[in-house]
Amino acid sequence: MRVDRPGRGVENDWVAVEAPLEIRLDDEPLVVTMRTPGRDRELAAGFLFTEGIISGREQIEAIEPCSDPLAYDPDNVVFVRLADAAKRNREQVLKARREFTAVAACGLCGKARLDDIYQRLPEIRPLDCSLDFLQPLPERMRRSQDLFDRTGGIHAAALFDPGGELLGLEEDVGRHNAVDKLIGRFLLAGRLPLGNRILVVSARAGFEIVQKAMMAAVPVLASVGAASSLAVSLAKDGGMALYSFLGNGRGHRYV
Amino acid sequence: MRVDRPGRGVENDWVAVEAPLEIRLDDEPLVVTMRTPGRDRELAAGFLFTEGIISGREQIEAIEPCSDPLAYDPDNVVFVRLADAAKRNREQVLKARREFTAVAACGLCGKARLDDIYQRLPEIRPLDCSLDFLQPLPERMRRSQDLFDRTGGIHAAALFDPGGELLGLEEDVGRHNAVDKLIGRFLLAGRLPLGNRILVVSARAGFEIVQKAMMAAVPVLASVGAASSLAVSLAKDGGMALYSFLGNGRGHRYV
Repeated sequence: MRVDRPGRGVENDWVAVEAPLEIRLDDEPLVVTMRTPGRDRELAAGFLFTEGIISGREQIEAIEPCSDPLAYDPDNVVFVRLADAAKRNREQVLKARREFTAVAACGLCGKARLDDIYQRLPEIRPLDCSLDFLQPLPERMRRSQDLFDRTGGIHAAALFDPGGELLGLEEDVGRHNAVDKLIGRFLLAGRLPLGNRILVVSARAGFEIVQKAMMAAVPVLASVGAASSLAVSLAKDGGMALYSFLGNGRGHRYV
Repeated sequence: MRVDRPGRGVENDWVAVEAPLEIRLDDEPLVVTMRTPGRDRELAAGFLFTEGIISGREQIEAIEPCSDPLAYDPDNVVFVRLADAAKRNREQVLKARREFTAVAACGLCGKARLDDIYQRLPEIRPLDCSLDFLQPLPERMRRSQDLFDRTGGIHAAALFDPGGELLGLEEDVGRHNAVDKLIGRFLLAGRLPLGNRILVVSARAGFEIVQKAMMAAVPVLASVGAASSLAVSLAKDGGMALYSFLGNGRGHRYV
């Protein structure tokens, strides 16, 4: 993109790419998300998993790009085909989503949704981590963020093992997408659940980030930014250790 | 919330509150958004306006909290009743939203949505602003951010006049909500469009932030964080000046 900088004039600058991705499930439109292109298969798989529509890799028959030569914008569509065994669960989940939207009684929605989420969450096995061990991880993540280096404006999610080794990192303009891409990548590689892994996110930890991490049974979530009240409650109820404001010499755990 | 800080032990700390708000439109559920409670009326009004469901304050007959004593969670529901004249437009917009979700053809969705958005945008009249003038505004916004001071984890959107006076500021865990609350507040006060106002946001400027600002005819948008590619394109096409990475001694305009 062209930018105008006083004293330096017009020059080129990198900007994080944002484009809509439509995920189609067995030929039906499921969701449109604004994402950074790349890892669309992983993003789709991760979204289906963290939203409870599938519970494992074997439930996916295929994930394919759009192959219709007449399609308008084929780079921004991904098709997911479920295995037969998963179709019934899909119907239930999609029906629940529709009913949630369509007939939610006054005030029930938030609470009902929370209860529904609690029921789906797997058991989380605690993992002992000290703050001393966690503090260097954001800097280690940061050093692997190619896109952030160029654009200064993209979120990251990274997975570490208990020895502090970086196992994977994904970047996206949307922080939920970064987490979905990362979890989707491990799902497709047959490496879920993430029972003794540490998830570090570059931004804030809101309710949905905690929910997504818990679906993958992550025992420790650490955010560079703040956590929200609902994120803290959900983590506490589910037995996940949640740290926020993590960095060199900083960070705390909610207890 | 209780936090454990090494060397200092367990102590209390402020956390930004996040809770679901259901917006019901003429008794039908419209959307559930995760927001920081407070200014729910403004948030609902702003959301309806920036999403194109209403085009003015006169189309709202009433915005009321939930008054059902048997409701489960009445603090997290807001009812909007439209004036009769607005109901037809509501039907059209909601139908378009449903059809968008239900029958979007392969790859058409993103592009179709963009075209639809372009058609709705009002004309924007350019406002001359120098970078020198803009650079102090984020610091001025920051000084008025009560919630950020306590929690360190909340977004803000602020409106300035061409003299640099702060006209209004809203905070929320969701950056879209902060913008909707601010625009909703000016809508309800009969002070739209924002034709010679400057909108400053604490976070990044993605596509949806630009879209919401353009619906209110804001001529200058400046973000403390980065802008995305789609945000830059939309602003350019619509004639809005977009600055990013704004702060003391920093910032640039996309041209």
